[in-house]
Amino acid sequence: MSNNALSAAMERASKIKLMIFDVDGVLTDGGLRYGAEGELIKTFNVLDGHGIKLLQEYGVQVGIITARNSAIVARRAADLGIQHLKQGVHDKRLAFEQVIESLHLTSEVCGFMGDDVIDLPVMTRVGFAASVPNGHPEVQTRAHYIAQVRGGHGAVREVCDFILRAQNNYEAALAPYLR
Amino acid sequence: MSNNALSAAMERASKIKLMIFDVDGVLTDGGLRYGAEGELIKTFNVLDGHGIKLLQEYGVQVGIITARNSAIVARRAADLGIQHLKQGVHDKRLAFEQVIESLHLTSEVCGFMGDDVIDLPVMTRVGFAASVPNGHPEVQTRAHYIAQVRGGHGAVREVCDFILRAQNNYEAALAPYLR
Amino acid sequence: MSNNALSAAMERASKIKLMIFDVDGVLTDGGLRYGAEGELIKTFNVLDGHGIKLLQEYGVQVGIITARNSAIVARRAADLGIQHLKQGVHDKRLAFEQVIESLHLTSEVCGFMGDDVIDLPVMTRVGFAASVPNGHPEVQTRAHYIAQVRGGHGAVREVCDFILRAQNNYEAALAPYLR
Amino acid sequence: MSNNALSAAMERASKIKLMIFDVDGVLTDGGLRYGAEGELIKTFNVLDGHGIKLLQEYGVQVGIITARNSAIVARRAADLGIQHLKQGVHDKRLAFEQVIESLHLTSEVCGFMGDDVIDLPVMTRVGFAASVPNGHPEVQTRAHYIAQVRGGHGAVREVCDFILRAQNNYEAALAPYLR
Repeated sequence: MSNNALSAAMERASKIKLMIFDVDGVLTDGGLRYGAEGELIKTFNVLDGHGIKLLQEYGVQVGIITARNSAIVARRAADLGIQHLKQGVHDKRLAFEQVIESLHLTSEVCGFMGDDVIDLPVMTRVGFAASVPNGHPEVQTRAHYIAQVRGGHGAVREVCDFILRAQNNYEAALAPYLR
Repeated sequence: MSNNALSAAMERASKIKLMIFDVDGVLTDGGLRYGAEGELIKTFNVLDGHGIKLLQEYGVQVGIITARNSAIVARRAADLGIQHLKQGVHDKRLAFEQVIESLHLTSEVCGFMGDDVIDLPVMTRVGFAASVPNGHPEVQTRAHYIAQVRGGHGAVREVCDFILRAQNNYEAALAPYLR
Repeated sequence: MSNNALSAAMERASKIKLMIFDVDGVLTDGGLRYGAEGELIKTFNVLDGHGIKLLQEYGVQVGIITARNSAIVARRAADLGIQHLKQGVHDKRLAFEQVIESLHLTSEVCGFMGDDVIDLPVMTRVGFAASVPNGHPEVQTRAHYIAQVRGGHGAVREVCDFILRAQNNYEAALAPYLR
Repeated sequence: MSNNALSAAMERASKIKLMIFDVDGVLTDGGLRYGAEGELIKTFNVLDGHGIKLLQEYGVQVGIITARNSAIVARRAADLGIQHLKQGVHDKRLAFEQVIESLHLTSEVCGFMGDDVIDLPVMTRVGFAASVPNGHPEVQTRAHYIAQVRGGHGAVREVCDFILRAQNNYEAALAPYLR
């Protein structure tokens, strides 16, 4: 990404009050680990978890909107204290609008991180759209920020750090660990 | 791939009415995840699933022909609405001919995506033969198109997008997400 | 790493009597493999196991301090004969000080290998701080030594070999296999 | 590898009547996938399986010697028709000598593919020693042949193809798929 694009993305990220993540390909590497009864396992990343907790601690709400429906995601969301969880969503735009309406937020102060075309109706409307290097080309072209590492390998943490930095909270979030 | 090879592959893909995929190494990364009772898990990819659905929506039938036999594949095929599923196949050519005969199709309007030498008897006969960068060298040499990403990491989606583009349906398939 | 940095790291590693490892991202690739009931599987590495055994054989005690809490880690630690195991630790510095006090060691003769900011309070105090190429940037900057391979892919073995070499035990550890 | 080294390795491989593989890091990627009760899953590779079958078909016997002990390996060996299986082996040289004695073979007509120092006592004695790019440096230095792809990603298939080629059976093994 050029320096101009990075500055513009940071300006956008500075305003975010709600950050929403897609699951497969963003919070995971996109692998669907099937047994005979369907999906058995999703592989999340430990770095991402700490980033999501920091984001919440510094006043950014966190949500998940995903097309698939899985008890695994419910469990991971519970472990991370993510309150806004919408699963089995085919129209992501509709689900997104329901969430922001219930929170009395406008789309400009919301961010979305996705990897496939189904995420575009939200990504083209939010103030800050992020993606992953393993995302679909049409999504990467339209994102304001693309993580350097792949989904499920810390891409979400990278975006959390980026938002913390944009909101001038990064140093404060790091300070307790440098004492 | 050279521009000439890409143009020739696109010309071939433009005629495809039935696209058949191998499983291990193509729809997965080739990993056989064994427990003490045999294979427990196969890792499919979320991007591939959406590609297969789009292909079907735009009039290309989708099938699976695989040498191994697994309830996991039956489940994934059901989730994706794949009707033509042949498992435990040792002679892929025979299985392929049974499928196209039942559909009254000629081999020129069929495609096959494989990764190992056992796929060659079909790949050397279909109109459009695709492979993966992790495929056996003898297969890569004989494929008309090789995906840029590996099997299980979106290689099938790349081929689905390629066929949609070749048949002038790519923009239409994308349009609903850009509204 | 520059030759100067490597020499300084080796000097530090030469004094180590206790080496402590973080789990997720260091002994594993950082993947949290969830089912509906939470984490099901952790992926350790076979090369690391042999390194940890060699370290113990040559007089370096080995410990684990981790923020998460898992029966999986207890099992792996038991398999490797790791006696100092602290799980569910939110204040790693406190847990570290308890361990070294019980062993009558000073922090200068202890090493720690971590990947995230939560590891920094220990890493900035020990004599030898190691990290992984997949670690958080703030951690990599502050480590004395960064493995060339990623966590869960042999990074721990690399550090074990480095310590054995620094303590002039590498050749002796290798000798039985070259007879 | 230089052309000279490759020629020498091929000369060695041309004489092999028994090829023995290590498991973790060679037939798998070295990942030990643990649950609370120990190892749950090993990830083998589909390309490797076909290579092992071809090797057997063309008169090279196949064996496995591994330090760990797992019902998973027994199952995979059974699926591939591997008759010579030695698990839980701490002295690989002893196990190797028992196998070749029972088969009335000399070590010069045997090959071994390993990834860690525990494999060296056999690798330094066999006629053909192979390794993987993810192997320990001490093992890579002493191997006659190093696969280009990693263990668990087709490294064993690469070595099987290399032996078939060295014994002038590669074209014959491929021919049925090109008819």
